[in-house]
Order: sequence, then C-alpha cells, then structure tokens
Amino acid sequence: MCGIVGMVGNGPVNQDIYDALLLLQHRGQDATGIATAESTGVMHMAKAQGMVREAFRTRDMRSLLGSVGLGHVRYATKGTASSEEEAQPFYVNSPYGIVLIHNGNLTNTRELTAEMEQRDRRHLNSSSDTELLLNVLAHELQTTTSPVDLDPDRIFEAVGNTHRRIEGAYAVIAIIAGYGLLAFRDPFGIRPLILGRRRAADGSTGSPTQPGDEWVVTSESLVLENADYEVVREVAPGEAVFISNDGELFSKQCADSPVLAPCAFEYVYLARPDSVMNGVSVYESRLRMGEKLADTIAKHVPREKIDVVMPIPDSSRPAAMEVARKLGIEYREGFYKNRYVGRTFIMPGQAVRKKSVRQKLNAMSTEFKGKNVLLIDDSIVRGTTSKQIIQMARDAGALSVTFASAAPPVRYPHVYGINMPSKHELIAHGRTIPEIAEELGCDHIVFQEVDDLKAAITEGTDLDDLDMSCFDGRYVTGTVTEEYLDWVERSQTS
Amino acid sequence: MCGIVGMVGNGPVNQDIYDALLLLQHRGQDATGIATAESTGVMHMAKAQGMVREAFRTRDMRSLLGSVGLGHVRYATKGTASSEEEAQPFYVNSPYGIVLIHNGNLTNTRELTAEMEQRDRRHLNSSSDTELLLNVLAHELQTTTSPVDLDPDRIFEAVGNTHRRIEGAYAVIAIIAGYGLLAFRDPFGIRPLILGRRRAADGSTGSPTQPGDEWVVTSESLVLENADYEVVREVAPGEAVFISNDGELFSKQCADSPVLAPCAFEYVYLARPDSVMNGVSVYESRLRMGEKLADTIAKHVPREKIDVVMPIPDSSRPAAMEVARKLGIEYREGFYKNRYVGRTFIMPGQAVRKKSVRQKLNAMSTEFKGKNVLLIDDSIVRGTTSKQIIQMARDAGALSVTFASAAPPVRYPHVYGINMPSKHELIAHGRTIPEIAEELGCDHIVFQEVDDLKAAITEGTDLDDLDMSCFDGRYVTGTVTEEYLDWVERSQTS
Amino acid sequence: MCGIVGMVGNGPVNQDIYDALLLLQHRGQDATGIATAESTGVMHMAKAQGMVREAFRTRDMRSLLGSVGLGHVRYATKGTASSEEEAQPFYVNSPYGIVLIHNGNLTNTRELTAEMEQRDRRHLNSSSDTELLLNVLAHELQTTTSPVDLDPDRIFEAVGNTHRRIEGAYAVIAIIAGYGLLAFRDPFGIRPLILGRRRAADGSTGSPTQPGDEWVVTSESLVLENADYEVVREVAPGEAVFISNDGELFSKQCADSPVLAPCAFEYVYLARPDSVMNGVSVYESRLRMGEKLADTIAKHVPREKIDVVMPIPDSSRPAAMEVARKLGIEYREGFYKNRYVGRTFIMPGQAVRKKSVRQKLNAMSTEFKGKNVLLIDDSIVRGTTSKQIIQMARDAGALSVTFASAAPPVRYPHVYGINMPSKHELIAHGRTIPEIAEELGCDHIVFQEVDDLKAAITEGTDLDDLDMSCFDGRYVTGTVTEEYLDWVERSQTS
Amino acid sequence: MCGIVGMVGNGPVNQDIYDALLLLQHRGQDATGIATAESTGVMHMAKAQGMVREAFRTRDMRSLLGSVGLGHVRYATKGTASSEEEAQPFYVNSPYGIVLIHNGNLTNTRELTAEMEQRDRRHLNSSSDTELLLNVLAHELQTTTSPVDLDPDRIFEAVGNTHRRIEGAYAVIAIIAGYGLLAFRDPFGIRPLILGRRRAADGSTGSPTQPGDEWVVTSESLVLENADYEVVREVAPGEAVFISNDGELFSKQCADSPVLAPCAFEYVYLARPDSVMNGVSVYESRLRMGEKLADTIAKHVPREKIDVVMPIPDSSRPAAMEVARKLGIEYREGFYKNRYVGRTFIMPGQAVRKKSVRQKLNAMSTEFKGKNVLLIDDSIVRGTTSKQIIQMARDAGALSVTFASAAPPVRYPHVYGINMPSKHELIAHGRTIPEIAEELGCDHIVFQEVDDLKAAITEGTDLDDLDMSCFDGRYVTGTVTEEYLDWVERSQTS
Repeated sequence: MCGIVGMVGNGPVNQDIYDALLLLQHRGQDATGIATAESTGVMHMAKAQGMVREAFRTRDMRSLLGSVGLGHVRYATKGTASSEEEAQPFYVNSPYGIVLIHNGNLTNTRELTAEMEQRDRRHLNSSSDTELLLNVLAHELQTTTSPVDLDPDRIFEAVGNTHRRIEGAYAVIAIIAGYGLLAFRDPFGIRPLILGRRRAADGSTGSPTQPGDEWVVTSESLVLENADYEVVREVAPGEAVFISNDGELFSKQCADSPVLAPCAFEYVYLARPDSVMNGVSVYESRLRMGEKLADTIAKHVPREKIDVVMPIPDSSRPAAMEVARKLGIEYREGFYKNRYVGRTFIMPGQAVRKKSVRQKLNAMSTEFKGKNVLLIDDSIVRGTTSKQIIQMARDAGALSVTFASAAPPVRYPHVYGINMPSKHELIAHGRTIPEIAEELGCDHIVFQEVDDLKAAITEGTDLDDLDMSCFDGRYVTGTVTEEYLDWVERSQTS
Repeated sequence: MCGIVGMVGNGPVNQDIYDALLLLQHRGQDATGIATAESTGVMHMAKAQGMVREAFRTRDMRSLLGSVGLGHVRYATKGTASSEEEAQPFYVNSPYGIVLIHNGNLTNTRELTAEMEQRDRRHLNSSSDTELLLNVLAHELQTTTSPVDLDPDRIFEAVGNTHRRIEGAYAVIAIIAGYGLLAFRDPFGIRPLILGRRRAADGSTGSPTQPGDEWVVTSESLVLENADYEVVREVAPGEAVFISNDGELFSKQCADSPVLAPCAFEYVYLARPDSVMNGVSVYESRLRMGEKLADTIAKHVPREKIDVVMPIPDSSRPAAMEVARKLGIEYREGFYKNRYVGRTFIMPGQAVRKKSVRQKLNAMSTEFKGKNVLLIDDSIVRGTTSKQIIQMARDAGALSVTFASAAPPVRYPHVYGINMPSKHELIAHGRTIPEIAEELGCDHIVFQEVDDLKAAITEGTDLDDLDMSCFDGRYVTGTVTEEYLDWVERSQTS
Repeated sequence: MCGIVGMVGNGPVNQDIYDALLLLQHRGQDATGIATAESTGVMHMAKAQGMVREAFRTRDMRSLLGSVGLGHVRYATKGTASSEEEAQPFYVNSPYGIVLIHNGNLTNTRELTAEMEQRDRRHLNSSSDTELLLNVLAHELQTTTSPVDLDPDRIFEAVGNTHRRIEGAYAVIAIIAGYGLLAFRDPFGIRPLILGRRRAADGSTGSPTQPGDEWVVTSESLVLENADYEVVREVAPGEAVFISNDGELFSKQCADSPVLAPCAFEYVYLARPDSVMNGVSVYESRLRMGEKLADTIAKHVPREKIDVVMPIPDSSRPAAMEVARKLGIEYREGFYKNRYVGRTFIMPGQAVRKKSVRQKLNAMSTEFKGKNVLLIDDSIVRGTTSKQIIQMARDAGALSVTFASAAPPVRYPHVYGINMPSKHELIAHGRTIPEIAEELGCDHIVFQEVDDLKAAITEGTDLDDLDMSCFDGRYVTGTVTEEYLDWVERSQTS
Repeated sequence: MCGIVGMVGNGPVNQDIYDALLLLQHRGQDATGIATAESTGVMHMAKAQGMVREAFRTRDMRSLLGSVGLGHVRYATKGTASSEEEAQPFYVNSPYGIVLIHNGNLTNTRELTAEMEQRDRRHLNSSSDTELLLNVLAHELQTTTSPVDLDPDRIFEAVGNTHRRIEGAYAVIAIIAGYGLLAFRDPFGIRPLILGRRRAADGSTGSPTQPGDEWVVTSESLVLENADYEVVREVAPGEAVFISNDGELFSKQCADSPVLAPCAFEYVYLARPDSVMNGVSVYESRLRMGEKLADTIAKHVPREKIDVVMPIPDSSRPAAMEVARKLGIEYREGFYKNRYVGRTFIMPGQAVRKKSVRQKLNAMSTEFKGKNVLLIDDSIVRGTTSKQIIQMARDAGALSVTFASAAPPVRYPHVYGINMPSKHELIAHGRTIPEIAEELGCDHIVFQEVDDLKAAITEGTDLDDLDMSCFDGRYVTGTVTEEYLDWVERSQTS
C-alpha cells in the first residue's frame, strides 16, 4: 500500500508535494520520500522512515529545489520495514537520470531480476520491485533512444516495451532529468492514478515570464480538490502521460489490449471516502455496501437480536450508518478511536509489551451495557483485531454481539499491492462462516456477498469490472499461477 | 487547556504515564513533560515542545525511573508557545523537593507574584501560574511543617492555606520527594480530576515482596478505563488526596465552603466523548445538546430549507446525529477531516503561506451539490473557521447554508483555563444574531439557548451547577472583577 | 577536574562564555553547561553530555539571554559519567534564585548531606557535591538575610558561614538572580580562580546608555588573554568577590586564616602551558621541571645510554625540550598524536574492542630504529599507558628505553578535585623504583624528586606553599583523616 | 584536499574504515562518507557534512554491512561547502553497480561533461569531478565488457581507456558490486596512494572457513602502521590494482608513459609527519626544509637580530626546531594552539563576528616580551593569517619580528587537488619579497628557495621529480593551458 504524487509547477513544488503526501498518509505510514528536479536537470532527493510530519526537516525541504517533483508514502511489507535501502524514490543516472516511484506489485520479479543482472548488467541494490521497474524502464529508454534523441514518441515506445516485460499492478510516476514528468498505469488499471490541472491564470502561482498550466498526477482525487486542481481525467489503463518541464502535456495508449478492472479493496478500505476513483465516489460506494449488507443481515439475524448498530471507526462508519438507517435501528458510536499513537519503549531488563487493540480503541460502557449490539467493520482479514473488539464489547456489558463485515471473506492472497498476511493467517482460509464466528467469539457473523460488493461499487456507474481476487480467486492479469502463489506463500513465511 | 495525570505504581510508571498522556493529547499539543521519583527520593524529569510522540526519546524514557510519577500535556497560550521555560512540570528543592503540574488558571497572579518575590524570597523564573502555585504550596509546606515532621495532616493543612491564598480554577498533582503523590482541586471543582485504583491482585503488576494497590489521578476517566483502573471517585471540590510512596491513600476536604460548578466547556468541546465527568457522560451530554438544538432549529428554520444535516468533524458529530434524527432529516458526512497535519516550511525569499481550513477539512462536492445544508458545530468563538467552512460548502455547490452551534454565543472572556482570544476577537462580542449570520456569510444561524445547554449537561444527573461564564458573564469564584478582566484584555492584546 | 567561567558584560554573554569554555575544554570533556540571567532576574540554562562543540545547539544558545552568565566543563568521575542529573550548573529557587558551578571536591559530604536532609529540609537530587555546596550557600543566605534585604555584606557573611561548614577544595561561581555574580575560593586556594576586567571604553562592547566595566572570573588566565581582559588579580584564598548586575565590584576576605597552597598538579599536567597561575607561568614551571629532571637523569643514567630525547605529546613537551638542551642530546618528536578521536561502535553480536594507546599515538619507526631513547612524560599514575608506550617504542626498533617522569611517584589519593584511580591502582603504590621499572618494562626509570618539583614550581616566585598531597601524603586542609581516605577508597572500588 | 581509504577484509570493515578516516581527518574536515558492499553485491552508503566523529551515528554504522568498503574525508571548495549532493562516495548502478571516491582534480571537466551528457547519455547530478570520473569509468567498463563477462583484464582495459580520457591528478578507489575493490593512480602519481596487507594468520581477524589476506589502499602510510598492515608498496603512477571479494590481488600498469612527479605540497603542509610517501619520510623532509631554510636565513638576517626561534604550530614545528638547532638559537613555543574549535552562533539582530586567528592561537607574552623573534611557518598563501600572527607577536611585546616560510612564495594556481584561493588573492602574486614583508608588517621575511625545497624533499631518496607548479608555474601533466587557468580564475571569483 502506497500513495504517490507527481507535479509540474510554475515555481518550487516541494511544499505542495509535502502537503499532498500528508493527504495520502493513510495509504502508507512507514516511510516517505520526495524527489525534485531543477530546470537544469539537477535532481534532489530526501527519504526517511516514519510519517511525513516526522520525516522531513527544514534542511531537507530547503534542498528540494525545482518545479518538477514527485513524492511517495509507503506501507512497509514484512521484513523490509527497517531498511532504508527499500524506501522510494529510486534513482538511476544512466540513461538521462531518472527517479521513479510506484504503487502496486509486480508478479514476475524473479524473471526480471535474472534478466537485469545477467543480460542488462544493471545492479539491483534492494529487493524492491520499484527498483526493478525503474531499471526495466531505464533499459528500454536506453535501447529505444540510442542513438536518437529523446522525445515523447520514444518515451511512449519505451513504456510500451516496459508494459510487455512486466506483469502485475502498477501506477508509476517518474522524472526524466532535463525533460519532464512521466506517469503510466498498468493495462488493467488495477491501481489508481488521476490527472489534474491548474490553469495558468490562477493568481496564486506564476513566473515572471509566461507561466504555463500546472499539472498533478496522484493516487487519489482529494489531492486535486484540496489544492484547487481541476480533474482532467484518470490516466487510462495502459496509458502514459508525459508533461514536459515547460508544462506541455503528451499522452498515448501504450498497451495492446487495456481493460479497466480496478482493485475492489480501494473502495472497501484503502481509499479516503472523499475520493472519486474510476468515476465512483468512495463514500457513496461505502453507503451502498451498508445498504446491501443490511439486506443480508436482515436475512440471517432476527431484528430483535439487535438493539444498536455501531461502526468500528473510522472506515466502516458510512456503511454502518446505512445499515442502521435501512434496518431502522438506533446508530451509536460506542467505540472511540485514540488518534494519538505512541511508542512502546523497551526498558533494560523488561520484556516487550504486547500491543493491544485497547491502545487504539476505547469502548464506552454506557453504550454497551445491557444491549444486543451489531458491530460493523469494513472487512475481516486476520481476525485478531475483530476478536479483541468483540471481547471489549462483552467486557463493556454487551448482552450479545453480532459482527458484520462490509466485505466478503478474504480467502485468497492479494498480489496486486495490498499488504496482506500469508494465506494461512487469513481467518477465512479453510473455515466455514460458523467456524469463523466461533473463532472470533461473536454470537452471529454476517459477511457481504461477493456479488453485492461488486454491485455496491459499480452500480449506477460506467465501471463494469473489478479485481476481487482476494475474495473470489480470479486474478485479472491472467498471469498469476499456482506456482507463483506458492512461492509468495513460502517467501512470506520464511 | 491542559491534561494531567499522576500515578503511584508497584513498578516503573514511565510507560504508563506516557500512554496516559497519549490519551490526553487532545487537551494540549504544544508541550509535554513527565517527572518521576524513585523510592530514594531521587527525581527525574523530561519535558519538550511538541506532541507526546515526538517529544520523548528512548533515552528520556530510560532516565525516568521510579514508581511514582506525573505527566502533563499543554496547549500554549499566545506569546508563550516557544518558551521551554514555561513548560510543566515545575520543580523546587526546598522544602523536601517538589514537582508539580496543574490544569487551570489562577486569577490573582499579580498579588501572588508580589508576595512571593518581596516576602517569601522565592524566585519565579517564568510567567507561568503553575510555578507560582508550586511556590505558594512550597512556602505553606515549609511554614506548616517547620520544625515538625511531614505527615498527611501537615500536608492537608498546607493545601488548606494554599486554597486561602490562591484564586481561580486549578486541578493540581504534585510529588513530594521521598513521601508520595499529592492531588487537589479548586473549591468549585471547575477543572476535572478523577481518582482510580488497580487492585494489588492484578497479575500484570506486582513487586517481589508485597505489592499494594496502584493509584492514578487524572483529568479524564478514559485514562482509567483504558488501563484497567476502577473508578474510585472524582476528587471533590476543595478536597486533597495524598498517596504515600507505598500506596496508602489519605484524603481530606481542605476548603471552607466547597461547591461543585464545573466548566461547561469540557462538555461542549474539550473532553473526549468517552469520558464521564462529574457523573455526566460527555457523549450523552452531546447527544442531548443535539436534541435541544433540534428544537431551537425547528423553531427558527423552515423544515423545507434543510435537505441534509452535516457535522463539522469531529466533536460535533454526536450533536449533529441527534439533530438529524430528531428533525427526521438525512445525516451525511460531507466534510472529511485531514488527520495528518504537517508543517509549513519557510523557504528563503518566500512569504509565509496562510494556513487555511482547507488543510484540515475537505468538502465532498457530491454531498453538497444542489442541497440545502445544515452544518452543526460545537461552538463558535472567533468565527474565522466557520466563515471559511461556510464558503467551502458554497464552493462545493450547496444551495443554501444554515449554521447551528451546539453552544450559545461566546460573549465573555474565559478565565478558568480554556484558551480563548481577547474579547474583541469574539465574533459574538457586540453583534446581534443576524449580524453574526451576515458576518459569517450563512443564510441562517441558530445558537443553543443558555438554559438548554445547562439542561443538556445536567439533566438526569446529580450535577446542578456549572461555570458558564463565557456565555453568561457569571464567574463562579466570585473574585473576578472588571478591573481584572480589563487587565487580562490588555495583556492579551499587547 | 573541571573548568569554570563567569561573566558580567554590557550585552549578551552567551557566545563569550561558549568561547571561554572551548579554551577550558582541556579541563573536562565529559559534560558542559551554561546558565545566564537577564536583568529582570529570569535565568536560562542549557547543559549536556559531551564536548562544548557538540553539546550546544543554536536553539540552546538563542535561549541563553542575559548579560550575566557562567559556564562549566566537567570531567566525569567513575560511575557518574552517564548521568545528566550530575551535570553542572545546579539551580535552587529559594531564596532569590541561585545557579552555581564549582571546581574542586568537598571532603565532608557525608556530614553535610545529613544536615541538609534532616535539618534544612533541602532536597538533594544527585550525589554531586556541587548541589550540596549550593544548598549550604542557599541556606546560609536565607538565614543571614531574613528578614533583611540582600546586599554585599550579607552575601559575604553567608560566604563566611559557608566556609565554616564545608571542607575541601573549591573555586565557586554563582549567579544570584536579579543581583549579580558571586565567586569565592577555598581558604587554601587549592583550586585556581582569576579575575579580569575589560574597561568600558573598549569599542568592541558597549550599550546605548552608559556601559560599565565588564568582568570575568575563571580557572585560567588564558581566557582573559584570549578575549582582551586585563588581569586584575587572582581571587585570594578565602576571598569572595561580588559583581553587581550593573558592573560594580565588591570583595572581602571571608575566611578566618587563609593560606595559599595551590594544587601542584595544575602545573604538572592539568593547566594549559600559556596560563599564569598564582603568579607562576605554567610553561616556565614545566621548563624548570625539565631542567631539574635533567640533573636527576644525569645522576642515574650514563650519558651514552641515551641517543635521543622524546616527549610523550603534548603536555611533557616543554620539560622534554629542556632535558634535551641541558643534557646536550638531540630532541626529536618520534610520537605523533592523533588529534581526532572517534567512537567505537558496538555492532550486534560483536564484543567491545579494547581501546589502546595506538589509537592516540603513532610511533615513527625512522626515529626509533637502532636508538637508545629517553622518553619524558609529565607523570605516571596507573602506568598502563606508559607500559604500552614503552612497548610501542621497542616495536618501532628502539635499542633501549629510558623513561622519565617530570613528577614524583604518585603514592597517595588526591582528594582535592583531580580525578585519580583508587590507591591500589596506582603503579607507585607499594612498589620501589626498580619494581616500577620492571612492571613498566623499561630499561631505566627516573622520577622527579619531590623537592625539585616544589622548587620548579615556586622558584623565583612569591609562592611558597603547595598542595602536593598525592606525592607526599600531607593534606593541606588538615581535615583529611585515615577514616575518610578509607571511605573514599571503598566508594571507588565498590 | 581529501583523504581516501579502501579495504577488503575477512569480516565487517565499517569500524576499520571509520578508524582510518579519523587518521586521515587532517586531509579534509568538511564532509565524509563510507560505502560498503556485502558479498551478495548489496551496497550500503552513509555520508554527511562535518567531521568523522560527528557525521556517523550508530544507526549509520550498523547499516554499513560487508567486508569490502571505502571511505572519504573532504575539504570543501568554495561554493560547494553546503551541498550534500557534492559529497563522496558517488554511485552508479549501470553497469554492475559501482561506488567511487577520488582525491585530486581533473583539468578537462568541460570536455568530459559535454561528452557525457551529449554522447554517453549519463546524468551528472553535481558539479563534482568525482561523479564525472565515475561515469567515465562506468562507460568504459560498459563498452569494454559488453557482451563479455567482467574479469581483471577487462577492468584494467577500462582503466587504461579512462586514463586516456581524463586529465589531471587523481587517486581513485572504487567498489564493483559483487566483484571487488579497484584502485588506480594518475600517470604522474601526483596524489598519493599506498597498498598494505595484513597476513591471514593474524589472530585478530579471520573467518570460520579459510580467511585470506586482508588489504588496504589509502592516502597515507600511517593508516597502515596504525592498524598493523605491512606496507606492500605504493601504487605506481598509472597502475591499477584490483582485489577480488575473496582477497586475491591483481595489478597492472595501465598508462602509456607513466612518470612519478608527486605534489610537493604534501610534504610542505598536507601530509602527516609520521607518513612515508613515495619513499620519503614527511617528518625528515620537514627537518631538511628547516636545515636549508636556516642557511637562507643566515644569508639574509644578521644573527644578532634573532633572540629566539618559534614555530607557528603545528606543521612547522620540525622545520623550526632544525632552524634553531642549525642557527644555534634558543627554540621556544610562544604560541599555543587552541585544540577545541567551536561555532559562532548568529543571534537574531546581531552581526556575524569576524573569525580571527586569536580563536586558534594564543601568544604567551612571557616568551615575547623584549625579544627579537623569528617565526617559522610552513608556507604563506593568502597572508591574512600571517599578518595577524605578526601583529599578535608585536602585541605580546616582541622587539622585532622576522618571518620565515619553509616553502617558496606561492605565485601560481594549484590545479591538482590542493585548495587554494584565486591567483589575485595570493599575497606573493605580483609582489616582490620586500613588498610582501611590508604588506605583512614584519621586519624581515625569508622564503625557502625553490631548489632548496626540491632538494629537501628528494635528497637521499630515489625520488627525482616533483610537481611544484604553484611555486614555479610548470604543470607536470602538460595539458594545463593559459585558457584553462583563466577559466579556473573566472569560476572562482564569480
């Protein structure tokens, strides 16, 4: 899980990229990085562990000169958390000087790594698929343009070749030093990428001579709204856009047979509710998830077994409100989320304390005492948090606890860029619905139906396909084999 | 605005105090400090600017040894923000060695300062009333106990003398080195203070020999709930409690005619909804504020002028939900709060950017377009934020904007520890209701009635008096003069 | 071992004190602190572990406002190295507000601690004798001045009472908030303290109105020379000087029968050669130590057994040059001192490396090969370093190694503020001269005679007594008992 | 001015490289960097502004894994001081992954930059000639080895091609990821580079299986001495050595007509006296400089005009001792060097203080009063420091001041890696000897003769040529044109 943003402005973009990363912080909180380029081609980069607010110091920001830039927030996967070498952006100086960031996951990294080291003689200094992707692009640019000069057509040709070599999900932003900003999206549009423009007339910007339009490409539309960019369009599956240093936009479809099948998990959990993604309002899709979930609950749970509906804050709130409204049951916020998360300090001679849900949520006993409660969460993955929450509700005095998930059971690995545990850690793996209820310790459990989730997201929109592989096992790219899934499983558990 | 906590444990209390401060972070985010005392009497202290998560480093925490401790979070008042010398706790080494923290505001600082410097020869190194309060207490302890030994009776006598010398609102926690933890509350109980106990049998704690009970005193009950302390009671107005280093509790009423009249603003805005304060659930009082506000809205605004009810997140959410329910109008969350707040870096040669509400809130246009919206906020103080929010609603496409405040107009200074601007900056100062609406740019404005607010807080509880001075100009301590208010006004604007 | 400085200036003194501490850095490199006072009485303090250059950040310096200030560098004694609570200056707020620093060592800390805690009810938060000294002074000021106002006479009375209560060696500087700077020296003048003045007319300083003289008191005269202060005089044994905030100087002899008997070790090793102390040039005293040592060498070592004379850099260089000149033997610098000292990082799973003399010195084999070398050091304490140096000389090819010490054998504990190991770790403890040579592994060893050292320091000067207790066991204060020495020994080895 | 070191060890080399950099710290104090490579090829890098002791934190050191590594200390040239992008090492990932450091200066950077950007399409992100050198080497390795595999022959072929493309002075160390450590020296051997080995049998090192020899290449021999490496030889002018990851050494002469003509300034000032460079002991060459200088002084200054000889510490000490010995005049150290250098803090509203020599040196007036002094310095470049020193001597009471320089007048730019000011700032530029004396304010001035300097360095050694271009204007590489010198001059003053 990552958030990305790129900008071409009429003046320094460092603060604007910083502000955008704050808005994307929910997509990754473990590391962050910014790179900028001056018109001379000189590039600057700062990256660090931790959240945006903590990571960048004044001296970093002052060094990030230039009117072209990009930024990244990152959720570290298991085993890579502490390694600064894994943090984005990545940089290569040959050819041209390129920095690149990426949201997604490549599924043919083993083949690409072998090609890179044995054939292309490019050094990979990390296990990051972003470094791999950058080097594939760099190699294709080198091959394509030599000995011809760089122009948008050559760049798009290189992106086309890159599409042919890499498999998986990817939304990519790169700076080519001295030229401009390149962005492209995988042929299935699995990960989001949206393009915005701020017209030159805007008084708040401007350069002495003749300022052109300002551009942004980023993961979520709220970044545009927040900084007064108008939405141009989403970057199409397989499409590449190139914005030259002086603000001219070029774009081209670079994939052979693109199909839009975005990741359903963006709507379920990852994206901010105030974003519109692939033409679908995330907030409204969550309201519809609640509506459809209400029907399923009504089918399985007697009305009198529920006195009150409560969300697990924050992402399930819209769905829970709709469940309450549709079922005609009182809605209450019995859990309060602790906004301020700190650290656990290890004192000499002390054991590490177990982190518990208690540090994140507080249950107001006045709301639970003597009531049959229906708790709504956006999804259930491992189930360990849900189990503790159910226990907290009981400790606070609930008579009975029904638990409902706005998403179907997660039964398959997610290989397109959402961090999930190994298959064997999924609570729904190899368990029936009643077995899940028993394992979690709730009186009843209700899951969204797969078709209902799809309908909740796509209903009344132009969108007609989704990647829902972690729910139904159908991987849209068509290149995910059993052997690959086994390898992923082995890598995660070793 | 401050949050305070003190603990006497069976082992090191540093991590527990740190965790408690995270839970109190909403009460102050500008500075924080922790002090601890070992059984030998050696004390340790760490304090720093910023939020808890940023302020304490591993080395600080490792130095905070001891099983008695206290901690503080602080909202800096104008002009003192950057001064580390103003940060709490404060320490004096004579007599005994005392560290002290305080939530509230003293109103006779001018007289006390003069006494201290001229008569008691105690040096004040800051303009903090906490340092003053500590030195009054220290002087009284010195006078009271000399040449007699310290015991709970002498301590309570000194607290009684302190009550007689100081005026205003104060909840105080102090450590007397080698003796134990002292806490007391002003004779009107304006600022909150609650006492909790964790029974010795609790397996998670315990010392090799004979562990006693563990104790906590703090601003809000959620700290107790979160760490499995049982509520013993709130410290009564004027009461002092003393917990010896080995866990024995002593308590005494030290004021002459105590009356409970807590600050209404805790319920309106400051406290966390999952706290219970003076026997009143903050969450439920906010629901009742919504209920009563709904009636007032119904009286003044035609039903058909409202299509949707929306809270200004987060604190007005319970009230807004109740308004919607009571009026039978759809409830929607059209504003999304940006959780991650960053910094504005000043680049050489650039002007400072104006901070706008836009950095904190995003308006989802899909929720506003073509609708008559009713926005609910907890209160309106300066009005500058409300004005921007109203404009955001219009920009997002609202047909009309009605604005309602769950609290009455703020017309008078708050002198009991809630930070408020100078009288002339209050939007309700010298304006009629229609003039306020015009100034804010909304179509209609509705304020809670003063009696309704009081009823919302006290209804169905044992509480029968409140400090509502900023709404009605009646200052419960009886010592606030016009001359004092003028002096405060002059101090703030100079 | 510590260095101290205090200043009363016509403008901010923070940078001047910082610069002075750099000049005193050789007297202590483990911790440092600065305190300043504004004319309003507000005091500021910053202290940290490490050397001056590393310890103070820009923000610290900016906070150190005021035209009266003091600073300290500290050599940590065993067991207290890592404790920030032990670092100077110390502060008490009652009476008046006092910060204090001290160079030296008190020998009746056990009695004083008991009095302080049981009778005076003053809390001691460290094991530092500086905190103790400050509280004795504070108590005497409180007693002396109450209820009378503070003036120089009362201050000197309190200093007199302090002299009567404390025993040992001490040079003290303190600020009394709102009044001025106080400095005094123990009745034997064991530790150095010198007073300097910069006349008001000096163009580099000056305030808008009527600037007075600027004053400095400090451990070594080079601080005066370096910053253009003229030497007024050394503070006499037992004398106190008080400089008011507006630059007026008062002074008084506060001891009953003062005698000047300064510590010989300042001349042997501690002081910088360009300082003049008690009227004696340190550099010239070291030249004389060489001269006299040459005679002793000539008596014990045949001339033909020495081809070359070499110093162990840096402090023995003047003595070595004189030895060479007097004996008419070539002088060469065969050892090169590594100026840049770093850290040893402990890698996970690695053992700590032993620090060796090799990291500090390099022997040039071209200078040693085939030669009979005479190595000169200032003194020999533990002998461990000397042993390694002798081995290095042999490894570099020396035919034979004669080792000479410009000081006599150290046979007794030093209790007046020079850090030395426990008696049993002294190489000269319980060993004859030949046994020492054997233990060190040199061919010959020569020590300065006790009388020669005294003559080298005092010859041609007005000085006629010295504390040479670590060489001859005679403790000048007359209060050092066998029982005390045993207690010190036990404290050090436990 | 830079210092470099590379190592191939049997275990982690991070601490050893850190220790070596401390020993090379005198060669550059503005920035430093370390890179290491694991046997897998993964590389790690840390670089920062400031001195070694301050620059590396524990976490940096822990990340520097691997048994192959290199390190750099840097003296920043004007205008680049604050830029982290200029700090070494530099890295390219194509081909193979290479990190590289360099001591020296290239004189055809303009041509190389153009080739690089226009023909080789390699991005240069700094103005550093090190980045340029790395990219030339990378391009030659890419061309040479494609599609053949990398082996020592190919590497040496690429070094040969690199020699042909670049001009100037350079001592280079690089790591090729997964292969080993490469080092080479320019065809005139202008900058130093020495090779050392630690035999496998050494008990302090070793790996479980079969440890090979350990190797070091570095700027100065003292690094070898200090860490028990034996000297293998100096890397010859034009030669390259390659040490594979498993410790096998390969070497080859890669230049067409190499000639040894090392930089004379290493002996005059830059190198540590305990180093042996090109077979010449630096310490002894400085003694000889003193001997010859004495003759010149004797010719020009009457013996009775000199009462005492004094060095300007530290580097002129050996020369000064020899001058004194030869002339039979007393040698005294009248200046004391302040070892601890701090910062000047800029307070709001204050002007920056001028840094003066006074902060670095203290003159002992007892040594100067009433004497005719002869001051010896290693060289005179700008003359500003000399001027202040002469004034200090007069202020301290000197009757007359004769100033002598162990090097001849500096009249020409230095283009081979010693930082010097622009030609117009050289005091000897366009001035006769008497004019220099007048400008400096001394009574007499004496400079070493050019031939004497050459003789002092080469006498009794195998060395017969030197680069002395800054004294005599003859640039040994033969490629330095007037046009180039003008361009350098313009670049420095713009």
